[in-house]
Amino acid sequence: MDVVAREAKREAARASRREPKQDRSRATRRRLLEAAVACLAEHGWAGSTVSVVAERAGVSRGAAQHHFPTREDLFTAAVEYVAEERSTALRALFPEGAADRRAVVAALVDLYTGPLFRAALHLWVAASNEEQLRPRVTELEARVGRETHRIAVDLLDADESRPGVRETVQGLLDMSRGLGLANLLTDDGGRRDRVVAQWATLLDETLDRPAP
Amino acid sequence: MDVVAREAKREAARASRREPKQDRSRATRRRLLEAAVACLAEHGWAGSTVSVVAERAGVSRGAAQHHFPTREDLFTAAVEYVAEERSTALRALFPEGAADRRAVVAALVDLYTGPLFRAALHLWVAASNEEQLRPRVTELEARVGRETHRIAVDLLDADESRPGVRETVQGLLDMSRGLGLANLLTDDGGRRDRVVAQWATLLDETLDRPAP
Repeated sequence: MDVVAREAKREAARASRREPKQDRSRATRRRLLEAAVACLAEHGWAGSTVSVVAERAGVSRGAAQHHFPTREDLFTAAVEYVAEERSTALRALFPEGAADRRAVVAALVDLYTGPLFRAALHLWVAASNEEQLRPRVTELEARVGRETHRIAVDLLDADESRPGVRETVQGLLDMSRGLGLANLLTDDGGRRDRVVAQWATLLDETLDRPAP
Repeated sequence: MDVVAREAKREAARASRREPKQDRSRATRRRLLEAAVACLAEHGWAGSTVSVVAERAGVSRGAAQHHFPTREDLFTAAVEYVAEERSTALRALFPEGAADRRAVVAALVDLYTGPLFRAALHLWVAASNEEQLRPRVTELEARVGRETHRIAVDLLDADESRPGVRETVQGLLDMSRGLGLANLLTDDGGRRDRVVAQWATLLDETLDRPAP
């Protein structure tokens, strides 16, 4: 057991003395989900098993399996959990709703450059070759995608009843995903900032254009 | 050996009766590269070995290793070879250079929805966790990316000396990559066509805009 796992176990022990049973169970679940995303981002699908995640979270394998009976359960739940956390954080960044559109575009693009995107990408690519994983990840991605689209429309103050607006926002999210991919092997931050600045300007002009 | 491999072997035998030695070696190499891309697209990095590809191409393992000493050699060469084939084909689609910009945008996006993109994506994601693969794939992606950008600039008749034009084209290619990702698990063709039509319009207006 490495230092991180030992520390996690100690933390788990301390937590179990403090919290009532239900909170403890919820905290264990959360630790497993966070460890699963970190594991997937660092080691990919092939290196991500329930045992590895349980050790990382400082939880017994049995307890991990009580929460998540299968490997597929654990990792799809993990990506969904962290995606929801990110959505909540994104809305919290702009509590007044539509703000400076360029700041919103930059924040949306940021969703695709961290460990969550790396984890989701590994799961996504693994699902393309694994029949057990495929339907669950397909369904998960559709759900997360719809929620991200809804947030983008709200924060950009985009009027989807106008022709082309829906597709403009979709294209922006597709571009964000592509920028995330470009950041996988190297730090693409400099180029990304310039691309985002330019397309944020184009988007701003398009969304504000009077209806034809 | 399955039917496909048997047929490939027969074809190889026929070819060896027809061609002089150098051509034969080149044809073997090409068969290996094409089999490697197909294998990567279908089975991912974990399922892609030199042996599997050699059998698929109807070539002995020894001959395959003569051409490509390591697994990394074979698969990076394969993705590069097919990327070059696609670039040549793309330029051939528009022999007069800049044509209808929307047709060019559609053809660029198409680069990211076929087996080449799937193969490259598997290699890319594997490289993010495998130290042996990482520097080679990073270098390969940079090279292929630069070439695709050059083709896009030519075919779109984009004047990169004008501010924002370079980033506009880069963002289009990032969007194309993101659209490729969105097509990995499901057929995303209908949505993609609408997004591409809208972004092609934005691009067309931007590139034709008089300098500020």
